[in-house]
Amino acid sequence: MTGARLTELGRDEALKLLGSVELGRIVFTEHALPAIRPVNHIVDDEDVIIRSHTGAALTSSVDTVVAYEADDIDPRTHTGWSVIITGIARKVTDEAAIARYERALQPWVDRSMDQVLRIHAEFVTGFTLTGGPRG
Amino acid sequence: MTGARLTELGRDEALKLLGSVELGRIVFTEHALPAIRPVNHIVDDEDVIIRSHTGAALTSSVDTVVAYEADDIDPRTHTGWSVIITGIARKVTDEAAIARYERALQPWVDRSMDQVLRIHAEFVTGFTLTGGPRG
Repeated sequence: MTGARLTELGRDEALKLLGSVELGRIVFTEHALPAIRPVNHIVDDEDVIIRSHTGAALTSSVDTVVAYEADDIDPRTHTGWSVIITGIARKVTDEAAIARYERALQPWVDRSMDQVLRIHAEFVTGFTLTGGPRG
Repeated sequence: MTGARLTELGRDEALKLLGSVELGRIVFTEHALPAIRPVNHIVDDEDVIIRSHTGAALTSSVDTVVAYEADDIDPRTHTGWSVIITGIARKVTDEAAIARYERALQPWVDRSMDQVLRIHAEFVTGFTLTGGPRG
């Protein structure tokens, strides 16, 4: 075998990597089926913050357990990392917090976003891939 | 608003984009919780083919409905695409097919993979993001 080596990441290291990128994917259940949407995020302490709009499918994720994943894996060298957090998605209701997050987190998509969601990282898992075939 | 424009993709176009990359993410349910794992894939006609090993978490996805997502979104220009298929994950049992897929699909991770899984694209959704702020 010539594949890359998989090494588990600690919680702090994993959250730091998650905060180093802007794009991730929220994983939730929609009509009892697994669903996923790419979305941009910021990490605030141990929470992932995303924005959404009322009509979005991922609104069904509010107050349920979701996963949030980001990765940066080079398709040429097969090296990089992946981080997954799991926790309950909550609507942010504090007006000052909403205003702060709306300033810090601009949606990438041309659509008005009227909700800010916070996913507290209850569980954090992550790994690095090193020493791939061309790593 | 200065975000990118979201345009829905047709089924054929979406499957073609999915086949143009090697890395995606399988989304499934593990102990009643949403789970996701990055994995490399190939697309064979309307099926996504991945490899796994018996001990992997995603073995619990066999014979259940899963989602599979890939995307290529530029964090600078906010342009790119995302494709999601949904279908049942089945273990490939035909010996000739297993041998063919094992040749075509080398695992990126240094771990022996003893299962080939096929996800038929029952539903396909996808979008492109164009004309972002720096697109």
